[in-house]
Amino acid sequence: MSVVSQSLVKKTFVGKVLALCGGVGGAKLAWGLTQALLPEQLTIVVNTGDDFEHLGLHISPDLDTVMYTLAGIHNRELGWGLAGESWQCMAALEQLGGETWFRLGDRDLATHLFRTQQLSQGKSLTEITATLYRQLGVQHTVIPMSNDAVRTRVNTDIGELAFQEYFVRRQCQPKVLGVHFAGAESASVSPQVLAALADPDLRAVIVCPSNPLLSIAPVLAVRGLRSALQATTAPVVVVSPLIGGKAVKGPTAKMMQELALPCDSMGIADFYRDIADCIVIDEADSADMNKLGIQTRVCKTLMKTDDDKRRLANALLAIVEKDLLQGK
Amino acid sequence: MSVVSQSLVKKTFVGKVLALCGGVGGAKLAWGLTQALLPEQLTIVVNTGDDFEHLGLHISPDLDTVMYTLAGIHNRELGWGLAGESWQCMAALEQLGGETWFRLGDRDLATHLFRTQQLSQGKSLTEITATLYRQLGVQHTVIPMSNDAVRTRVNTDIGELAFQEYFVRRQCQPKVLGVHFAGAESASVSPQVLAALADPDLRAVIVCPSNPLLSIAPVLAVRGLRSALQATTAPVVVVSPLIGGKAVKGPTAKMMQELALPCDSMGIADFYRDIADCIVIDEADSADMNKLGIQTRVCKTLMKTDDDKRRLANALLAIVEKDLLQGK
Repeated sequence: MSVVSQSLVKKTFVGKVLALCGGVGGAKLAWGLTQALLPEQLTIVVNTGDDFEHLGLHISPDLDTVMYTLAGIHNRELGWGLAGESWQCMAALEQLGGETWFRLGDRDLATHLFRTQQLSQGKSLTEITATLYRQLGVQHTVIPMSNDAVRTRVNTDIGELAFQEYFVRRQCQPKVLGVHFAGAESASVSPQVLAALADPDLRAVIVCPSNPLLSIAPVLAVRGLRSALQATTAPVVVVSPLIGGKAVKGPTAKMMQELALPCDSMGIADFYRDIADCIVIDEADSADMNKLGIQTRVCKTLMKTDDDKRRLANALLAIVEKDLLQGK
Repeated sequence: MSVVSQSLVKKTFVGKVLALCGGVGGAKLAWGLTQALLPEQLTIVVNTGDDFEHLGLHISPDLDTVMYTLAGIHNRELGWGLAGESWQCMAALEQLGGETWFRLGDRDLATHLFRTQQLSQGKSLTEITATLYRQLGVQHTVIPMSNDAVRTRVNTDIGELAFQEYFVRRQCQPKVLGVHFAGAESASVSPQVLAALADPDLRAVIVCPSNPLLSIAPVLAVRGLRSALQATTAPVVVVSPLIGGKAVKGPTAKMMQELALPCDSMGIADFYRDIADCIVIDEADSADMNKLGIQTRVCKTLMKTDDDKRRLANALLAIVEKDLLQGK
């Protein structure tokens, strides 16, 4: 595991950026932003609606996906977990008749054991996250959306499911009838998030191309976060997770269809209309350019290579600096 | 992992045996007894005074040492843990700055995760132990001494230490001033242990050559167990863990000296005098034969090979059958 190299990157953006993200897609852009911005310029707020307790461990899938990605030790083939992971514990657990539907790698287990122990000692998820990221050499600031439990629940045609039951155990197969975020109304936004949003140096909020219904909605559901986003003077830029009406990965398109939401740029624009100042869509959707009733910009949003991630991050920052901030 | 082969062993002993044991030395003889007795003939009662909570996991070191030994998957080099174990989780935990003084192998972790989850679901340690042993193919009955928490505490020249703090973290280096078993007075003996002791077919209780102060004393400290042992009609046979005044492994001799107990056959005889009908000492100590004020037999008690373990088990059963039971 190595500290992310930043020495070769020229940082030119002035001011600070706050990014909201969930899992894999969001983590890719978050990594791109760390390559374009200095540690003190970037705060990444991560969804914890996917968090759950399993085998007595507190597991924070999105915080870990972002952490492993920023540390450069993520598993690029699986899309989750660690590169070069081993699975001895799961193999032994299977022999014992234990639950193995949620695959925990041997090295990944250390993260969950550490976090669970620190939580039991009264540390906050924000403190523990900072420690974990620091130990893995990540220098940029990453904050869970809340220290309080918010749990994404998916209402489906086979009943209400906890998020991981729907997402991992049943592989997103049940038809989605609705989603809600248990605990969100009583959860408090992490104070560091509110401080970052109120920072006079904040120049942009970037909503990463994560699943809006499962990864960004829980963040926005935390009491006070939506209004803080509406109150911030920095432009809020949403990167659409759809390309040509399809998601790069995951059940975004399937869910939008099941919920009768338009599965296109307009659906995304509608979803974020009350907080977004600008929506960024892929070149494949450039025909939507003037139809969305909101400032729209076109970029190549697909991130396959590290170069793609850097390029999208820099393109977004250029849109913010040379375009959205010009009138302010 | 394989079921212990029993097909080649001729079982001739008639009736049932209950064995008390702790860790490594006890596990060796326990394995020997499983080779000489059918599953329905043998009940093994294991010390849980070493149990502790670590990294949020409930760890039962003696139950696991006995389990891995009986399943034939124990690590013969280390004397604890699993053969062919990997250590990826510990390596990752070390990088995170977590606690790694108690080494948990990747496959071993599955045992602790399974046990901890089952305990949190309200299962008893006895039930969970039965499940774990069965899953690993062990057919003989193994029971924790109690389902209630009994925690061995070691009073030392640097203060009172939890057992694993003394034993593993400080490698038995502090001078021992005393030992006590927190919770023992209010703990209940596992009902299966009492039933085994009251079974009219019981022909012997064998106290394995475990550390008397750390492995057997906590068993005897559980409320009601000592009196049940005194009340049983079967002879109680103690195998001395000392050979020529030295322990085969572990701090038995060092502790006996620190506590000013005679570190020889007499010390062991005194320790067990109120429950023992017979003490078995090693050939090296045959000079003590008629000095102990208790029936004494001499055997080769050192167990280096599997043959040694089988031979000692059969020798003990022969002593019981042809000797101690003759007068009854």
